This record gives sequence, structure tokens and C-alpha cells, in this order.
Amino acid sequence: MLLIKNIGVLQTPAGSFAHRGPQQGQNLKLCNAAVLVEDGKIRSITADGQLPEGAGRAETVLDAACRLATPGLIDCHTHMVFGGYRQGEIPLKLQGAGYLDILRAGGGILDTVGKTRAAAEDELFEKSMGFLDEMLALGITSVESKSGYGLDQENELKQLQVNRRLQEAHKMDVVSTFLGAHAIPPEYAGRADAYIDMLCASVLPIVAEEKLAGFCDVFCETGVFDVPQSRKMLQAAQKLGLRARIHADEIDEIGGAALAGELCAVSAEHLIATGDRGMSAMAEAGVIADLLPGTSFYLGKTYAPAREMIARGIPVAIASDFNPGSCPSLNLQLAMCMGYLKYRMTPEEVLTAVTVNAACSLGLEARVGTLEEGKQADIVLWNAPDMEMLVYRFGSNLAETVIKNGEVVKA
Amino acid sequence: MLLIKNIGVLQTPAGSFAHRGPQQGQNLKLCNAAVLVEDGKIRSITADGQLPEGAGRAETVLDAACRLATPGLIDCHTHMVFGGYRQGEIPLKLQGAGYLDILRAGGGILDTVGKTRAAAEDELFEKSMGFLDEMLALGITSVESKSGYGLDQENELKQLQVNRRLQEAHKMDVVSTFLGAHAIPPEYAGRADAYIDMLCASVLPIVAEEKLAGFCDVFCETGVFDVPQSRKMLQAAQKLGLRARIHADEIDEIGGAALAGELCAVSAEHLIATGDRGMSAMAEAGVIADLLPGTSFYLGKTYAPAREMIARGIPVAIASDFNPGSCPSLNLQLAMCMGYLKYRMTPEEVLTAVTVNAACSLGLEARVGTLEEGKQADIVLWNAPDMEMLVYRFGSNLAETVIKNGEVVKA
Repeated sequence: MLLIKNIGVLQTPAGSFAHRGPQQGQNLKLCNAAVLVEDGKIRSITADGQLPEGAGRAETVLDAACRLATPGLIDCHTHMVFGGYRQGEIPLKLQGAGYLDILRAGGGILDTVGKTRAAAEDELFEKSMGFLDEMLALGITSVESKSGYGLDQENELKQLQVNRRLQEAHKMDVVSTFLGAHAIPPEYAGRADAYIDMLCASVLPIVAEEKLAGFCDVFCETGVFDVPQSRKMLQAAQKLGLRARIHADEIDEIGGAALAGELCAVSAEHLIATGDRGMSAMAEAGVIADLLPGTSFYLGKTYAPAREMIARGIPVAIASDFNPGSCPSLNLQLAMCMGYLKYRMTPEEVLTAVTVNAACSLGLEARVGTLEEGKQADIVLWNAPDMEMLVYRFGSNLAETVIKNGEVVKA
Repeated sequence: MLLIKNIGVLQTPAGSFAHRGPQQGQNLKLCNAAVLVEDGKIRSITADGQLPEGAGRAETVLDAACRLATPGLIDCHTHMVFGGYRQGEIPLKLQGAGYLDILRAGGGILDTVGKTRAAAEDELFEKSMGFLDEMLALGITSVESKSGYGLDQENELKQLQVNRRLQEAHKMDVVSTFLGAHAIPPEYAGRADAYIDMLCASVLPIVAEEKLAGFCDVFCETGVFDVPQSRKMLQAAQKLGLRARIHADEIDEIGGAALAGELCAVSAEHLIATGDRGMSAMAEAGVIADLLPGTSFYLGKTYAPAREMIARGIPVAIASDFNPGSCPSLNLQLAMCMGYLKYRMTPEEVLTAVTVNAACSLGLEARVGTLEEGKQADIVLWNAPDMEMLVYRFGSNLAETVIKNGEVVKA
């Protein structure tokens, strides 16, 4: 048993469901709180200087020194298993090279695909373990990891196998998503339909059979996969028991968000260009918007219309989009700051976005995303008195103590 | 003696002068390099797998494991000694409150002034020591610290006294700047001229006599101090042996950059609104542009015209502007990334901006800012193979090993 006492403010969303509209900004705040943890779970929470019943039997007592406590952060959109890096494209980019110029010069996503295919599974595993260590130290306790740099049967399964090993080997909760339809591989250039058919016929059944992923994702975008192709992929996945998520409307509104609504996808992601039709469909079907401000920052794009989404009753999550091309940052704290600065979300809305709503986006809401009795003891003590401080002191890692499954993993 | 061997690439500007025009982007790059350090200074540097003469006598040998080595970073513009924080203004800001609304509600800079005045010198000292620790871990080995939250004799001198104690107590090099003319204190509301006269007559002579600051700075801006007031303050300081720097054209181009040229100030800082007249004056007089991208990011403003400045032969430095109001980030690595992303500077130009040009801006160029024989051994080994990686992986602290005055202070 672990007792965390002397928590200045314990702030958390409540309940195991996606928070939308006014709920997005409603957190429970307990002052002078304490948490008793038993067998990795929250046994009880008290406030106003009271100690939980049985607190005297705790073997370990942690004094939070009046710090803010929140649920562990959840990063619900990453592409963290990849070969190589793409910093070598910077000189080209500074010379004004566009996306296609870089692709022609052997760069872009196909560069990462080549290096991911060439990398041994062990090499990808070790590299990703390092990323998970860094994330945990930032207060992130659950993370999604997509495939999508293999783009053939062998290498997509290799990436998913890495996800499985990460989940087993690391303290972090790792949720695996199959994103075979991330790009059209060179072998299928000009034959996107055939590639989707191959994925559905050959790869997806293995993914489902071996339970290598709980989710299936598609990059629905101009020049990548169109709406009918995306629908085909996601419906095939749903039939085999995977849940659907979708990269939608990052550049053009071609109907990805609307498709998310139609298919009752768990989430639609990016959504920079999403307009009325897409938002209406998402609100009606309760699709979670996974917004990725770091990508807008890194690419110099506009930011997704988060305030309008909240006003329309769409639950908003915020994630890092960590990947080697469009957002080489795994720092979810920084994305949270952008949630305030660029999306104009309140600190409470931001906390909801990276805890309970992100948990719902990953299907983890029964276990994590809030601090409530019976939930997994994933708790961060912040070097901050309130959530405002957390979105304000950008660039500093304010995670002071990180507790994962009741174990102090950063002190 | 310390030997650092097996450096993948040692990258550094060369020479002890401000680098402008094409020089801004010219770094020396040595492959498979080694550095021999003696008595805190660089004794010799070798490349191509050669070891320096006398390397065998080194008591400590550090294997850089093919990492990138650069000079320690230099942050040449901060307001790091302050009372309180201002995250409490976030709810007001989200409701659309402007600068003046917040000031009327008791917030803004006068809030920080009140808390800085109320704080004991020891309290400010301890808080700032924590910031210096955090900076050092980010690879920053020299930093400027301005006064300007006291705004009366007693409290301006208190802030400068803290700077002196920081310089004595911490491994970091701390350069002290007197910024009494940072804002008009409540006691002088509507009487800016009288406040400048008081500073010149009463405070400045003590600052000079007791050598509490090597530089004098003024906030030259609409609604703060105009050009004649700024000129008066800086000329009085120059007469007493202080060197001039100036907050210029952050919001409006009222002539601060031109004044910097006229007075041969060491640097002009912010420069978001600077146009032809100001840039011409700066280029002619060799004034260094200290650019502060984090402030543009935090305030959602446009970014200073760095490319045009470089094209005009103005030496560009990049700094954090760490302060509790307009840029609560002390992360110079993040500002470097913005130098690439938002200013479109090359990674080499960025390195020059945070090393030799920043050193010149602080008058430290004879000692630090480059890796050359005889200079202070302020060296960072990066978890990166090249400078591109450093501006690319934003949000991660890539400083792996930090060496200050020949001592390993982060390993």
C-alpha cells in the first residue's frame, strides 16, 4: 500500500465516458487531498486534510508537498515506432522544397518506410523503449502506437509485434493501432485500391487473429486514400472486431470526418480543415476529435477549430502526433500548452483532453483517465500548484513524481 | 586535465566577433574530434581521429560516443529574477481581456513588481538558483539577467544584488543588466520623465559605483519610454561606463532600433516591428539583433524578420526572453527550434545565434561562444549526430553531457 498525502489540489475529470460540451471543462478539484493505493489501484481518495481509512497500514508514504496531482497523461495519437529520423530534409525545406520535391529526392514518408523496413525488430524495439522512458518522465502513462511505416505484410506485422513487446516490457500502457493504410507503398504506386484489397485480404485477418491491434486507422486525404477506400478498410476491420479511427481532413475536407460519423468510429484525428458537415456527423455519432497542435506548429499550418468543436458537443482529446516527418516531438506537455495558447482551451478542458477523453479514444476509460476509486493508480504530482501553471511554463518538464500502476517510476 | 574523445562532429563558429551576413551561417565542423581541457580552458582540439598532444596525461577521459559537440549555449536576454508567477491571468486572457484590462485587474507587469518588491532577497536568490540549474541541464552555460521588476532604488538594487550572488554561487556565468526603465512604476504614473531623472540621478550612480551591472537596458515602446527618454537613460549609463542595450520595436516601430544604431548600443532586442530605418541604423553600427521567438509564440504575434536582418548584415542572436508575463519558458533549445521553423534560419545560423553572437551581445566573446584553444571549456555533447537534429526534435532535452569551465556538470 502507498499513501500519497498533502496533495495541494487533486484535479481530475470524473466518470468513464467522453466529456463533451460544458463537461469538457469540468474537473473535480479536491484540496489538501490524499490518495491510498493498494495493488496498483486507487483504493480511496480523501480531501480537506482527512486521511483515508487504513492509511496507517501503508508501507510507503509520499508527501506531495502541496503539489497538484492529476491523472497520468494519455497520448492517444503517435507513430512512435519508426526507423531513422528525417532531420536531413531540413536544408531542402529551407530552400523552399515542397512535400513532393522532398519525396522525389527520396525523402518524406517513403524514406521512413525504407528505414523501418530495413530495421530489425529488436532495433525498433530498443529505440521505442527509449521514447517510452522519455514519455514516462514527462508524466505520460498510456500511449497509442500506430503501425504504418511497413506498408507490406511483413513489416506492418513487425511494427505491430514491436507494439506488443513494448506493452509487455515497459511499464507504460501501449495501445496498438494497425495503420497499414498510412500511405501508398512504392510497390502499389497508382494502385491504391489494390493495396487496400491486399491489406483487407492478407494482413488484416492476421492482425485480428493474433490480436496485434485493437484499432484500425486510415489516412483519408487527397492523394492518399479517398473516402470509399477508407470506408472499405475500416468496415473490414470492424467486421473482424477492431475499432475504427481515422486520419481525417488534415489538409482538405474530403469527407473523412463525415465518414467517422457514418461508421461510428471511436475518433477522427487532425481535423484542421473540418467544416460543418464533418463536425455535425461527429457530434451526432459521439466521435472523439483527437487534435494534434504540435503538427500545426511544426508545419506552420492553421490550428484545428477546437473551440467550435467543443461548442458543438464534440469531445476533444489532444495528442502529440509524435512521428519523424510532421511532428518530431513526443512532449505532450508542450501540446497541452498549445491547447491553451492556440486552441484557446481552458486548462480544465486541456486536462480532460489528455486524460479521460484520450482514454476513451483508446478504449481505456474503464481503467485510466481519471482519479477515482477502483481505477489504476496512474498519478502525476506536478511541480505546480494548479493546472494554469502547467500550460503556462512551457518548455519545462513539470512532472515531479510519476506513479504508474501504484509504483513510483519517477521521483 | 580532461580529454573528450570520439566526438562525431565538433561544430562551432570561429573567432571572437559578431558573425553577420554569410558568416552567420558558417560553422567550423571537425569530424572524429577530441578536445583536451586543462585548468578549465580548452588546451587543444584535434580532428580525424588524432588525439591532442599530452592527451595521455588526462586524469579524466570522456567518450563522446560519436555525439555532436558544440559550445555551451548562451541565453543573452532573460528577466529571470522575479517574484511570483502570472499563470493566474490565464482565465482572464481566455475571456478576451487585453493587456490593459489585466493591468486594471491588478495583473500584468505591476503584479510581478509587487511580488518582487515583497520578496526577500534570499527568496529571489533561491528561486533563481533553481532556474539556473534547469538551464544548465538544457546545455546553457552563460545567461543574462535583467533587473526591472523593482522599479525603485531599493528593489532594483536588490535584484542586481541577486544577480551578483548568482554569479558567485552558481557555476553558470551570469551577466547582469540594469533595466530600471522597464516600466513606469505606480509612484510615477504619468511622470515617465521624472522617473528616468530619478534613475539617472539616484540609482544609476550606485549601480556603476558598485559594479552591479555591466549593461543598461531600456524598454523603448509606445506607452512605456519614448526615444528621448530612452536616449537620456542610455547616454547617462554609457557615461558611467555601462554598455547599452535596448528593448526596441516589439510592438510599434517608434525608433528604438534606430536609437540603438545612433548610440552604438551592443544590441537591440525583440525587433518584431523593425523596418528599413531601424535595420539600416543597426547594420551600419554593428548592433546585434537579439531575437526572441518564444515571445512571439506565447503572445501569438508575428515573428521578427530574421532573414531580412541576416541579408542586411545584422548579426542575429536568439534568446529565450524568460519572464513571467510574455514568455514563461527558459528553454533555449525550443527557441532554437523556432529559429529554424519560424525565422527560417539554417541550423548553422541558429548555432551562431546562441553561441558567438550571444556572447558578443554580453561582452563575453573573449572567453566563451566558440570552441577554440584558450577559450573557457564550456562544451555540450548532444544526444544528436548533427545540428539539424537539434532544431528538429523539439520538446526533448537533447543535452546529454554539459561541461562548464572544464567540469562535467551534467552527465
